[in-house]
Amino acid sequence: MYILNCGQPLNAQILIKHNLIPVLNSVEDIKSWVCGNLNNESCVIHLDTGMNRLGLSYSNILDLKKTKYINKLKIKFLMTHLASAENAKKKFNEIQLNKLQKYTKIISKIKNHSIKSSICNSSAIWLGEKYLLNIVRPGASFLGINPLLNKQNPLKETVSMYAQITQIRKALKNTSVGYGQTVKLKKDSLLATISIGYSNGLSRLLSNKGSVYINNKKLDILGRVSMDLTVIDISKFKDRELKIGDIVEIFGPNKSLEKFAIENNTIPYEILCNIDKNIPKIIV
Amino acid sequence: MYILNCGQPLNAQILIKHNLIPVLNSVEDIKSWVCGNLNNESCVIHLDTGMNRLGLSYSNILDLKKTKYINKLKIKFLMTHLASAENAKKKFNEIQLNKLQKYTKIISKIKNHSIKSSICNSSAIWLGEKYLLNIVRPGASFLGINPLLNKQNPLKETVSMYAQITQIRKALKNTSVGYGQTVKLKKDSLLATISIGYSNGLSRLLSNKGSVYINNKKLDILGRVSMDLTVIDISKFKDRELKIGDIVEIFGPNKSLEKFAIENNTIPYEILCNIDKNIPKIIV
Repeated sequence: MYILNCGQPLNAQILIKHNLIPVLNSVEDIKSWVCGNLNNESCVIHLDTGMNRLGLSYSNILDLKKTKYINKLKIKFLMTHLASAENAKKKFNEIQLNKLQKYTKIISKIKNHSIKSSICNSSAIWLGEKYLLNIVRPGASFLGINPLLNKQNPLKETVSMYAQITQIRKALKNTSVGYGQTVKLKKDSLLATISIGYSNGLSRLLSNKGSVYINNKKLDILGRVSMDLTVIDISKFKDRELKIGDIVEIFGPNKSLEKFAIENNTIPYEILCNIDKNIPKIIV
Repeated sequence: MYILNCGQPLNAQILIKHNLIPVLNSVEDIKSWVCGNLNNESCVIHLDTGMNRLGLSYSNILDLKKTKYINKLKIKFLMTHLASAENAKKKFNEIQLNKLQKYTKIISKIKNHSIKSSICNSSAIWLGEKYLLNIVRPGASFLGINPLLNKQNPLKETVSMYAQITQIRKALKNTSVGYGQTVKLKKDSLLATISIGYSNGLSRLLSNKGSVYINNKKLDILGRVSMDLTVIDISKFKDRELKIGDIVEIFGPNKSLEKFAIENNTIPYEILCNIDKNIPKIIV
Protein backbone atom coordinates (compact mmCIF):
# COMPACT_ATOMS: atom_id res chain seq x y z
CA MET A 1 0.00 0.00 0.00
CA TYR A 2 1.24 3.47 -0.91
CA ILE A 3 0.93 6.44 1.47
CA LEU A 4 0.63 9.77 -0.35
CA ASN A 5 1.26 12.05 2.61
CA CYS A 6 3.19 10.34 5.41
CA GLY A 7 3.07 13.19 7.91
CA GLN A 8 6.00 15.25 9.13
CA PRO A 9 8.68 14.34 9.82
CA LEU A 10 8.46 11.18 7.72
CA ASN A 11 8.95 8.16 9.98
CA ALA A 12 10.68 5.46 7.93
CA GLN A 13 10.64 2.87 10.73
CA ILE A 14 6.87 2.92 11.10
CA LEU A 15 6.32 2.75 7.34
CA ILE A 16 8.66 -0.22 6.96
CA LYS A 17 7.23 -2.00 10.00
CA HIS A 18 3.73 -1.89 8.47
CA ASN A 19 4.94 -2.73 4.97
CA LEU A 20 3.83 0.66 3.59
CA ILE A 21 5.48 2.30 0.59
CA PRO A 22 5.88 6.05 1.01
CA VAL A 23 5.27 8.61 -1.70
CA LEU A 24 8.12 11.07 -1.16
CA ASN A 25 6.93 14.60 -1.86
CA SER A 26 9.91 16.76 -1.06
CA VAL A 27 13.66 16.85 -0.61
CA GLU A 28 13.02 16.67 3.15
CA ASP A 29 10.95 13.50 2.71
CA ILE A 30 13.75 11.95 0.64
CA LYS A 31 16.35 12.76 3.29
CA SER A 32 14.20 11.31 6.11
CA TRP A 33 13.51 8.17 4.08
CA VAL A 34 17.13 7.55 3.09
CA CYS A 35 18.34 8.05 6.66
CA GLY A 36 15.73 5.70 8.19
CA ASN A 37 15.43 3.11 5.45
CA LEU A 38 18.38 0.88 6.22
CA ASN A 39 17.11 -2.13 4.24
CA ASN A 40 16.68 -0.11 1.05
CA GLU A 41 12.93 -0.61 0.67
CA SER A 42 11.13 0.85 -2.37
CA CYS A 43 9.56 4.27 -2.59
CA VAL A 44 7.55 6.41 -5.01
CA ILE A 45 8.63 9.93 -5.94
CA HIS A 46 5.98 12.60 -6.40
CA LEU A 47 6.79 15.32 -8.94
CA ASP A 48 4.92 18.60 -9.23
CA THR A 49 4.04 19.37 -12.83
CA GLY A 50 1.57 22.18 -12.28
CA MET A 51 -0.61 21.72 -9.22
CA ASN A 52 1.70 23.68 -6.90
CA ARG A 53 0.56 21.30 -4.21
CA LEU A 54 2.75 18.30 -3.46
CA GLY A 55 5.86 16.91 -5.13
CA LEU A 56 9.35 17.87 -6.18
CA SER A 57 9.65 20.94 -8.39
CA TYR A 58 11.87 21.05 -11.48
CA SER A 59 14.61 22.81 -9.53
CA ASN A 60 14.37 20.17 -6.77
CA ILE A 61 14.90 17.51 -9.43
CA LEU A 62 17.94 19.28 -10.82
CA ASP A 63 19.32 19.63 -7.28
CA LEU A 64 18.89 15.88 -6.71
CA LYS A 65 21.87 15.27 -8.99
CA LYS A 66 24.11 17.13 -6.58
CA THR A 67 23.17 15.03 -3.54
CA LYS A 68 24.05 11.50 -2.57
CA TYR A 69 20.42 10.78 -1.67
CA ILE A 70 19.14 10.02 -5.14
CA ASN A 71 21.60 7.13 -5.52
CA LYS A 72 20.25 5.50 -2.38
CA LEU A 73 16.63 5.47 -3.54
CA LYS A 74 14.97 2.35 -4.92
CA ILE A 75 12.27 4.09 -6.97
CA LYS A 76 9.19 2.00 -7.80
CA PHE A 77 7.80 4.74 -10.03
CA LEU A 78 7.48 8.49 -10.45
CA MET A 79 4.06 10.09 -10.18
CA THR A 80 2.31 13.39 -10.65
CA HIS A 81 -1.26 14.72 -10.42
CA LEU A 82 -3.14 16.38 -13.27
CA ALA A 83 -4.98 19.54 -12.27
CA SER A 84 -7.82 19.28 -14.78
CA ALA A 85 -7.98 15.66 -15.91
CA GLU A 86 -11.79 15.66 -16.08
CA ASN A 87 -11.68 18.29 -18.85
CA ALA A 88 -10.19 16.82 -22.04
CA LYS A 89 -10.20 20.26 -23.68
CA LYS A 90 -7.63 21.70 -21.32
CA LYS A 91 -4.20 21.97 -22.94
CA PHE A 92 -2.72 21.98 -19.48
CA ASN A 93 -3.10 18.19 -19.36
CA GLU A 94 -0.63 17.80 -22.22
CA ILE A 95 1.74 20.34 -20.68
CA GLN A 96 1.78 18.33 -17.46
CA LEU A 97 2.28 15.04 -19.33
CA ASN A 98 5.24 16.51 -21.22
CA LYS A 99 6.79 17.76 -17.99
CA LEU A 100 6.44 14.37 -16.34
CA GLN A 101 8.09 12.71 -19.33
CA LYS A 102 10.93 15.23 -19.28
CA TYR A 103 11.48 14.80 -15.54
CA THR A 104 11.33 11.01 -15.89
CA LYS A 105 14.12 11.18 -18.46
CA ILE A 106 16.26 13.32 -16.17
CA ILE A 107 15.80 11.01 -13.18
CA SER A 108 16.27 7.87 -15.31
CA LYS A 109 19.54 9.34 -16.54
CA ILE A 110 20.73 10.10 -13.01
CA LYS A 111 19.81 6.57 -11.91
CA ASN A 112 21.23 5.08 -15.09
CA HIS A 113 18.15 2.95 -15.80
CA SER A 114 14.64 3.52 -17.07
CA ILE A 115 12.16 4.46 -14.34
CA LYS A 116 8.40 3.90 -14.53
CA SER A 117 5.88 6.73 -14.26
CA SER A 118 2.21 7.41 -13.58
CA ILE A 119 -0.05 10.42 -14.23
CA CYS A 120 -3.61 9.00 -14.39
CA ASN A 121 -6.25 9.41 -11.73
CA SER A 122 -9.67 8.06 -12.74
CA SER A 123 -10.56 10.96 -15.04
CA ALA A 124 -7.22 10.92 -16.84
CA ILE A 125 -7.82 7.35 -18.02
CA TRP A 126 -10.39 8.89 -20.41
CA LEU A 127 -7.79 11.31 -21.86
CA GLY A 128 -6.37 8.67 -24.18
CA GLU A 129 -3.76 5.97 -24.34
CA LYS A 130 -0.68 8.15 -24.16
CA TYR A 131 -1.64 9.19 -20.63
CA LEU A 132 -1.74 5.62 -19.33
CA LEU A 133 2.07 5.32 -19.03
CA ASN A 134 3.09 2.44 -16.73
CA ILE A 135 0.60 2.66 -13.88
CA VAL A 136 -2.87 4.19 -13.50
CA ARG A 137 -4.41 5.16 -10.16
CA PRO A 138 -8.21 4.88 -10.37
CA GLY A 139 -10.12 5.62 -7.17
CA ALA A 140 -13.31 7.57 -7.85
CA SER A 141 -14.13 5.41 -10.87
CA PHE A 142 -14.32 2.27 -8.73
CA LEU A 143 -17.29 4.00 -7.09
CA GLY A 144 -18.74 4.93 -10.47
CA ILE A 145 -18.17 8.65 -9.91
CA ASN A 146 -18.41 10.52 -13.22
CA PRO A 147 -14.86 11.06 -14.52
CA LEU A 148 -15.96 13.63 -17.13
CA LEU A 149 -16.82 17.30 -16.58
CA ASN A 150 -20.25 18.32 -17.90
CA LYS A 151 -20.67 15.05 -19.78
CA GLN A 152 -22.83 12.02 -19.24
CA ASN A 153 -21.35 9.53 -16.82
CA PRO A 154 -19.93 6.56 -18.74
CA LEU A 155 -19.89 4.57 -15.49
CA LYS A 156 -22.61 3.21 -13.26
CA GLU A 157 -22.56 4.68 -9.77
CA THR A 158 -22.09 2.01 -7.13
CA VAL A 159 -23.01 3.83 -3.92
CA SER A 160 -26.50 4.61 -2.64
CA MET A 161 -27.47 6.00 0.75
CA TYR A 162 -30.63 5.21 2.67
CA ALA A 163 -32.24 6.16 5.96
CA GLN A 164 -35.30 4.89 7.83
CA ILE A 165 -38.57 6.50 8.85
CA THR A 166 -38.38 6.94 12.62
CA GLN A 167 -41.74 8.58 13.19
CA ILE A 168 -44.81 9.70 11.26
CA ARG A 169 -47.09 12.48 12.45
CA LYS A 170 -49.98 14.61 11.30
CA ALA A 171 -49.03 18.25 11.70
CA LEU A 172 -51.43 21.15 11.65
CA LYS A 173 -51.41 24.13 9.29
CA ASN A 174 -49.34 27.05 10.63
CA THR A 175 -47.23 24.92 12.96
CA SER A 176 -43.49 25.03 12.42
CA VAL A 177 -40.91 22.30 11.89
CA GLY A 178 -37.50 21.85 13.45
CA TYR A 179 -34.94 24.10 15.09
CA GLY A 180 -35.30 27.84 14.59
CA GLN A 181 -38.90 27.44 13.29
CA THR A 182 -37.58 28.17 9.80
CA VAL A 183 -40.68 26.84 8.04
CA LYS A 184 -44.39 27.15 8.75
CA LEU A 185 -46.76 24.58 7.26
CA LYS A 186 -49.11 26.04 4.65
CA LYS A 187 -51.62 23.24 5.20
CA ASP A 188 -52.31 20.27 7.43
CA SER A 189 -49.51 17.88 6.51
CA LEU A 190 -48.30 14.36 6.97
CA LEU A 191 -44.67 14.45 8.12
CA ALA A 192 -42.03 11.78 8.57
CA THR A 193 -38.96 12.10 10.73
CA ILE A 194 -36.08 10.18 9.18
CA SER A 195 -33.00 8.79 10.85
CA ILE A 196 -30.31 10.90 9.18
CA GLY A 197 -28.84 14.33 9.77
CA TYR A 198 -25.77 16.43 9.30
CA SER A 199 -23.63 14.15 11.43
CA ASN A 200 -24.33 11.24 9.09
CA GLY A 201 -23.89 12.80 5.65
CA LEU A 202 -27.03 14.87 5.02
CA SER A 203 -25.64 18.39 5.03
CA ARG A 204 -27.33 21.20 6.89
CA LEU A 205 -27.13 23.13 3.59
CA LEU A 206 -30.14 21.05 2.50
CA SER A 207 -32.37 22.54 5.22
CA ASN A 208 -35.66 23.59 3.56
CA LYS A 209 -34.09 22.87 0.15
CA GLY A 210 -33.18 19.23 -0.32
CA SER A 211 -35.34 16.26 -1.17
CA VAL A 212 -35.34 12.50 -0.66
CA TYR A 213 -37.28 9.64 -2.22
CA ILE A 214 -39.64 7.02 -0.85
CA ASN A 215 -41.16 4.52 -3.28
CA ASN A 216 -39.76 6.69 -6.11
CA LYS A 217 -41.71 9.75 -4.96
CA LYS A 218 -39.77 12.95 -4.42
CA LEU A 219 -40.32 14.38 -0.94
CA ASP A 220 -39.15 17.75 0.36
CA ILE A 221 -37.01 18.32 3.42
CA LEU A 222 -38.86 20.62 5.83
CA GLY A 223 -37.04 22.88 8.27
CA ARG A 224 -33.49 22.56 9.40
CA VAL A 225 -31.61 19.30 9.13
CA SER A 226 -30.74 18.28 12.72
CA MET A 227 -27.70 16.35 13.90
CA ASP A 228 -29.17 12.93 13.18
CA LEU A 229 -32.78 13.61 12.30
CA THR A 230 -34.53 15.30 9.41
CA VAL A 231 -38.22 15.95 8.79
CA ILE A 232 -39.75 15.40 5.35
CA ASP A 233 -43.18 16.12 3.91
CA ILE A 234 -44.94 12.85 3.07
CA SER A 235 -48.34 14.41 2.32
CA LYS A 236 -48.11 12.85 -1.17
CA PHE A 237 -48.85 9.56 0.54
CA LYS A 238 -52.13 8.54 2.12
CA ASP A 239 -52.41 8.11 5.86
CA ARG A 240 -50.97 4.67 6.82
CA GLU A 241 -49.53 4.13 3.32
CA LEU A 242 -46.06 4.50 4.84
CA LYS A 243 -44.94 3.10 8.17
CA ILE A 244 -42.17 3.46 10.70
CA GLY A 245 -39.05 1.63 9.53
CA ASP A 246 -39.71 2.29 5.82
CA ILE A 247 -36.65 3.00 3.70
CA VAL A 248 -35.81 6.52 2.48
CA GLU A 249 -33.43 7.10 -0.44
CA ILE A 250 -30.99 9.97 0.14
CA PHE A 251 -29.22 9.29 -3.16
CA GLY A 252 -29.39 6.21 -5.33
CA PRO A 253 -31.67 5.05 -8.17
CA ASN A 254 -33.78 8.24 -8.18
CA LYS A 255 -31.04 10.79 -7.57
CA SER A 256 -27.46 10.18 -8.59
CA LEU A 257 -24.64 10.83 -6.15
CA GLU A 258 -23.42 13.35 -8.72
CA LYS A 259 -26.69 15.30 -8.56
CA PHE A 260 -26.79 15.08 -4.78
CA ALA A 261 -23.25 16.49 -4.65
CA ILE A 262 -24.25 19.42 -6.87
CA GLU A 263 -27.18 20.16 -4.51
CA ASN A 264 -24.56 20.29 -1.74
CA ASN A 265 -22.28 22.66 -3.72
CA THR A 266 -19.59 20.04 -3.81
CA ILE A 267 -18.27 16.90 -5.51
CA PRO A 268 -19.15 13.24 -4.87
CA TYR A 269 -15.86 12.62 -3.08
CA GLU A 270 -16.68 15.16 -0.35
CA ILE A 271 -20.14 13.61 0.10
CA LEU A 272 -18.63 10.16 0.57
CA CYS A 273 -16.00 11.48 2.99
CA ASN A 274 -18.72 13.08 5.12
CA ILE A 275 -20.71 9.90 5.53
CA ASP A 276 -20.30 9.04 9.17
CA LYS A 277 -17.95 6.13 9.79
CA ASN A 278 -20.61 4.63 12.09
CA ILE A 279 -23.13 4.24 9.26
CA PRO A 280 -23.49 0.56 8.35
CA LYS A 281 -22.12 -0.15 4.87
CA ILE A 282 -23.79 -2.98 2.98
CA ILE A 283 -22.02 -4.47 -0.03
CA VAL A 284 -24.48 -6.07 -2.46
CA MET B 1 -26.65 6.34 29.06
CA TYR B 2 -29.77 7.51 27.23
CA ILE B 3 -30.37 6.77 23.53
CA LEU B 4 -32.50 9.41 21.81
CA ASN B 5 -33.27 7.49 18.64
CA CYS B 6 -32.98 3.73 19.09
CA GLY B 7 -33.62 2.73 15.47
CA GLN B 8 -36.63 0.87 14.14
CA PRO B 9 -38.01 -1.41 15.34
CA LEU B 10 -36.82 -0.65 18.86
CA ASN B 11 -34.88 -3.64 20.18
CA ALA B 12 -35.44 -3.82 23.94
CA GLN B 13 -33.14 -6.81 24.45
CA ILE B 14 -30.08 -5.08 22.99
CA LEU B 15 -30.76 -1.90 24.97
CA ILE B 16 -31.10 -3.80 28.25
CA LYS B 17 -28.08 -6.00 27.55
CA HIS B 18 -25.88 -2.88 27.18
CA ASN B 19 -27.48 -1.06 30.09
CA LEU B 20 -28.87 1.70 27.83
CA ILE B 21 -31.97 3.70 28.68
CA PRO B 22 -34.17 4.35 25.67
CA VAL B 23 -35.92 7.62 24.92
CA LEU B 24 -39.31 6.46 23.62
CA ASN B 25 -40.48 8.77 20.86
CA SER B 26 -43.74 7.24 19.68
CA VAL B 27 -46.58 4.91 20.58
CA GLU B 28 -44.79 2.24 18.50
CA ASP B 29 -41.60 2.69 20.55
CA ILE B 30 -43.61 2.33 23.75
CA LYS B 31 -45.23 -0.89 22.53
CA SER B 32 -41.89 -2.41 21.49
CA TRP B 33 -40.31 -1.45 24.79
CA VAL B 34 -43.13 -2.81 26.96
CA CYS B 35 -43.21 -6.09 25.03
CA GLY B 36 -39.43 -6.65 25.23
CA ASN B 37 -38.67 -5.15 28.64
CA LEU B 38 -39.53 -8.06 30.90
CA ASN B 39 -37.55 -6.79 33.91
CA ASN B 40 -39.31 -3.42 33.91
CA GLU B 41 -36.21 -1.27 33.30
CA SER B 42 -36.55 2.52 33.21
CA CYS B 43 -37.22 4.63 30.12
CA VAL B 44 -37.58 8.28 29.14
CA ILE B 45 -40.60 9.56 27.23
CA HIS B 46 -40.12 12.20 24.56
CA LEU B 47 -43.00 14.62 24.03
CA ASP B 48 -43.41 16.89 21.04
CA THR B 49 -44.28 20.42 22.11
CA GLY B 50 -43.69 22.21 18.81
CA MET B 51 -40.74 20.84 16.82
CA ASN B 52 -42.88 18.42 14.78
CA ARG B 53 -39.85 16.16 14.82
CA LEU B 54 -39.72 13.44 17.48
CA GLY B 55 -41.92 12.63 20.43
CA LEU B 56 -45.51 11.91 21.39
CA SER B 57 -48.09 14.45 20.29
CA TYR B 58 -50.86 15.70 22.56
CA SER B 59 -53.34 13.28 21.01
CA ASN B 60 -50.86 10.41 21.51
CA ILE B 61 -50.69 11.35 25.20
CA LEU B 62 -54.45 11.37 25.53
CA ASP B 63 -54.60 7.98 23.80
CA LEU B 64 -52.09 6.57 26.29
CA LYS B 65 -54.78 6.56 28.94
CA LYS B 66 -56.77 4.06 26.92
CA THR B 67 -53.96 1.52 26.62
CA LYS B 68 -52.46 -0.83 29.14
CA TYR B 69 -48.95 0.18 28.05
CA ILE B 70 -48.64 3.35 30.11
CA ASN B 71 -49.12 1.41 33.33
CA LYS B 72 -46.19 -0.85 32.49
CA LEU B 73 -43.70 1.99 31.98
CA LYS B 74 -41.16 2.95 34.62
CA ILE B 75 -40.63 6.55 33.51
CA LYS B 76 -37.35 8.19 34.59
CA PHE B 77 -38.47 11.54 33.21
CA LEU B 78 -40.36 13.24 30.41
CA MET B 79 -38.46 15.38 27.93
CA THR B 80 -39.02 17.74 25.04
CA HIS B 81 -36.87 19.90 22.74
CA LEU B 82 -37.19 23.65 22.39
CA ALA B 83 -37.13 24.86 18.78
CA SER B 84 -35.55 28.27 19.42
CA ALA B 85 -33.86 28.09 22.81
CA GLU B 86 -30.94 30.26 21.67
CA ASN B 87 -33.31 33.20 21.14
CA ALA B 88 -34.70 34.43 24.48
CA LYS B 89 -37.05 36.81 22.68
CA LYS B 90 -39.09 34.04 21.09
CA LYS B 91 -42.42 33.57 22.85
CA PHE B 92 -42.49 30.06 21.48
CA ASN B 93 -40.12 28.98 24.25
CA GLU B 94 -42.74 29.74 26.86
CA ILE B 95 -45.47 28.08 24.82
CA GLN B 96 -43.39 24.92 24.68
CA LEU B 97 -42.62 25.06 28.41
CA ASN B 98 -46.32 25.42 29.22
CA LYS B 99 -47.17 22.47 27.00
CA LEU B 100 -44.56 20.27 28.66
CA GLN B 101 -45.91 21.20 32.09
CA LYS B 102 -49.46 20.46 30.99
CA TYR B 103 -48.47 17.08 29.49
CA THR B 104 -46.44 16.24 32.60
CA LYS B 105 -49.52 16.82 34.74
CA ILE B 106 -51.61 14.55 32.52
CA ILE B 107 -49.07 11.73 32.58
CA SER B 108 -48.43 12.15 36.33
CA LYS B 109 -52.16 11.83 36.87
CA ILE B 110 -52.39 8.66 34.77
CA LYS B 111 -49.42 7.18 36.64
CA ASN B 112 -50.75 8.44 39.96
CA HIS B 113 -47.41 9.95 41.03
CA SER B 114 -45.38 13.01 40.14
CA ILE B 115 -43.08 12.51 37.15
CA LYS B 116 -39.89 14.47 36.48
CA SER B 117 -39.37 16.51 33.32
CA SER B 118 -36.64 18.18 31.24
CA ILE B 119 -36.69 20.86 28.54
CA CYS B 120 -33.21 22.44 28.59
CA ASN B 121 -30.52 21.90 25.99
CA SER B 122 -27.44 24.09 26.51
CA SER B 123 -29.03 27.28 25.19
CA ALA B 124 -32.19 26.90 27.25
CA ILE B 125 -30.18 27.00 30.48
CA TRP B 126 -29.75 30.74 29.75
CA LEU B 127 -33.55 31.25 29.47
CA GLY B 128 -33.95 31.46 33.23
CA GLU B 129 -34.62 29.33 36.25
CA LYS B 130 -38.13 28.24 35.42
CA TYR B 131 -36.82 26.30 32.43
CA LEU B 132 -34.41 24.22 34.47
CA LEU B 133 -37.12 21.84 35.77
CA ASN B 134 -35.65 18.58 37.12
CA ILE B 135 -32.93 17.76 34.62
CA VAL B 136 -30.91 19.81 32.10
CA ARG B 137 -29.17 18.34 29.06
CA PRO B 138 -26.12 20.44 28.18
CA GLY B 139 -24.02 19.19 25.26
CA ALA B 140 -22.78 22.06 23.10
CA SER B 141 -21.95 24.16 26.14
CA PHE B 142 -19.43 21.59 27.39
CA LEU B 143 -17.52 22.46 24.21
CA GLY B 144 -17.95 26.17 24.83
CA ILE B 145 -20.22 26.62 21.81
CA ASN B 146 -22.09 29.92 22.05
CA PRO B 147 -25.57 29.22 23.46
CA LEU B 148 -26.91 32.66 22.50
CA LEU B 149 -28.03 33.87 19.07
CA ASN B 150 -26.32 37.07 17.87
CA LYS B 151 -24.83 37.71 21.31
CA GLN B 152 -21.36 37.48 22.69
CA ASN B 153 -20.40 34.00 23.81
CA PRO B 154 -20.54 33.81 27.63
CA LEU B 155 -18.46 30.61 27.44
CA LYS B 156 -14.89 29.87 26.44
CA GLU B 157 -14.64 27.58 23.43
CA THR B 158 -12.73 24.42 24.27
CA VAL B 159 -11.97 22.98 20.82
CA SER B 160 -9.25 24.09 18.41
CA MET B 161 -8.16 22.41 15.20
CA TYR B 162 -4.66 22.36 13.80
CA ALA B 163 -2.85 20.95 10.78
CA GLN B 164 0.82 20.72 9.80
CA ILE B 165 2.83 22.20 6.95
CA THR B 166 3.65 19.30 4.66
CA GLN B 167 5.58 21.18 2.00
CA ILE B 168 6.77 24.70 1.20
CA ARG B 169 7.43 25.87 -2.33
CA LYS B 170 8.18 29.00 -4.30
CA ALA B 171 5.63 29.34 -7.07
CA LEU B 172 5.93 31.59 -10.07
CA LYS B 173 3.57 34.36 -11.10
CA ASN B 174 0.81 33.14 -13.47
CA THR B 175 1.05 29.51 -12.39
CA SER B 176 -2.12 27.96 -10.99
CA VAL B 177 -2.84 26.13 -7.76
CA GLY B 178 -4.78 22.94 -7.17
CA TYR B 179 -7.46 21.00 -9.00
CA GLY B 180 -9.32 22.77 -11.77
CA GLN B 181 -6.72 25.58 -11.88
CA THR B 182 -9.25 27.85 -10.19
CA VAL B 183 -6.68 30.46 -9.17
CA LYS B 184 -3.71 31.99 -10.98
CA LEU B 185 -0.97 33.61 -8.90
CA LYS B 186 -0.72 37.37 -9.38
CA LYS B 187 2.91 37.40 -8.29
CA ASP B 188 5.74 35.06 -7.40
CA SER B 189 4.56 33.53 -4.15
CA LEU B 190 5.63 31.39 -1.25
CA LEU B 191 3.12 28.58 -0.79
CA ALA B 192 2.63 25.97 1.89
CA THR B 193 0.74 22.74 1.45
CA ILE B 194 -0.98 21.79 4.70
CA SER B 195 -2.12 18.39 5.86
CA ILE B 196 -5.88 18.92 5.96
CA GLY B 197 -8.66 18.76 3.42
CA TYR B 198 -12.36 18.15 3.00
CA SER B 199 -12.13 14.60 4.32
CA ASN B 200 -10.77 15.88 7.63
CA GLY B 201 -13.04 18.82 8.39
CA LEU B 202 -11.90 21.67 6.12
CA SER B 203 -14.87 22.03 3.81
CA ARG B 204 -14.45 22.39 0.06
CA LEU B 205 -16.71 25.48 0.40
CA LEU B 206 -13.59 27.29 1.67
CA SER B 207 -11.77 26.83 -1.66
CA ASN B 208 -10.28 30.23 -2.63
CA LYS B 209 -12.21 31.81 0.25
CA GLY B 210 -11.12 30.52 3.64
CA SER B 211 -8.12 31.40 5.73
CA VAL B 212 -5.94 29.81 8.39
CA TYR B 213 -3.38 31.15 10.86
CA ILE B 214 0.31 30.51 11.43
CA ASN B 215 2.07 32.43 14.21
CA ASN B 216 -1.10 34.58 14.48
CA LYS B 217 -0.85 35.71 10.84
CA LYS B 218 -3.91 35.25 8.66
CA LEU B 219 -3.12 33.29 5.51
CA ASP B 220 -5.43 32.73 2.54
CA ILE B 221 -6.45 29.37 1.13
CA LEU B 222 -5.46 29.22 -2.55
CA GLY B 223 -7.32 27.06 -5.05
CA ARG B 224 -9.58 24.16 -4.28
CA VAL B 225 -9.39 22.33 -1.00
CA SER B 226 -8.37 18.73 -1.85
CA MET B 227 -9.35 15.57 -0.01
CA ASP B 228 -6.60 15.83 2.59
CA LEU B 229 -4.40 18.66 1.39
CA THR B 230 -4.86 22.41 1.06
CA VAL B 231 -2.52 25.08 -0.29
CA ILE B 232 -2.14 28.40 1.52
CA ASP B 233 -0.28 31.59 0.63
CA ILE B 234 2.57 32.16 3.10
CA SER B 235 4.15 35.07 1.21
CA LYS B 236 3.70 37.17 4.36
CA PHE B 237 6.60 35.19 5.78
CA LYS B 238 10.20 35.37 4.69
CA ASP B 239 11.85 32.47 2.94
CA ARG B 240 12.87 29.86 5.56
CA GLU B 241 10.91 31.64 8.32
CA LEU B 242 8.49 28.71 8.31
CA LYS B 243 9.42 25.07 7.97
CA ILE B 244 7.87 21.72 7.20
CA GLY B 245 6.04 20.37 10.25
CA ASP B 246 5.03 23.83 11.52
CA ILE B 247 1.57 24.08 13.07
CA VAL B 248 -1.37 25.69 11.25
CA GLU B 249 -4.46 26.89 13.11
CA ILE B 250 -7.73 26.05 11.32
CA PHE B 251 -9.79 27.46 14.18
CA GLY B 252 -8.69 28.26 17.70
CA PRO B 253 -7.21 31.32 19.42
CA ASN B 254 -7.26 33.48 16.25
CA LYS B 255 -10.57 32.35 14.80
CA SER B 256 -13.38 31.04 16.96
CA LEU B 257 -15.15 27.83 16.05
CA GLU B 258 -18.27 29.99 15.83
CA LYS B 259 -16.71 32.24 13.18
CA PHE B 260 -15.31 29.26 11.30
CA ALA B 261 -18.80 27.72 11.25
CA ILE B 262 -20.29 30.92 9.83
CA GLU B 263 -17.65 30.87 7.06
CA ASN B 264 -18.88 27.36 6.30
CA ASN B 265 -22.56 28.44 6.24
CA THR B 266 -23.30 26.24 9.19
CA ILE B 267 -23.18 25.86 12.98
CA PRO B 268 -20.34 24.67 15.20
CA TYR B 269 -21.98 21.30 15.77
CA GLU B 270 -21.85 20.40 12.06
CA ILE B 271 -18.17 21.42 11.93
CA LEU B 272 -17.36 19.15 14.86
CA CYS B 273 -19.36 16.26 13.37
CA ASN B 274 -17.41 16.56 10.10
CA ILE B 275 -14.02 16.30 11.74
CA ASP B 276 -12.71 12.96 10.58
CA LYS B 277 -12.83 10.27 13.27
CA ASN B 278 -9.19 9.43 12.36
CA ILE B 279 -7.92 12.87 13.40
CA PRO B 280 -5.96 12.59 16.65
CA LYS B 281 -7.75 14.35 19.50
CA ILE B 282 -5.53 15.82 22.19
CA ILE B 283 -7.08 16.75 25.54
CA VAL B 284 -5.06 19.47 27.30
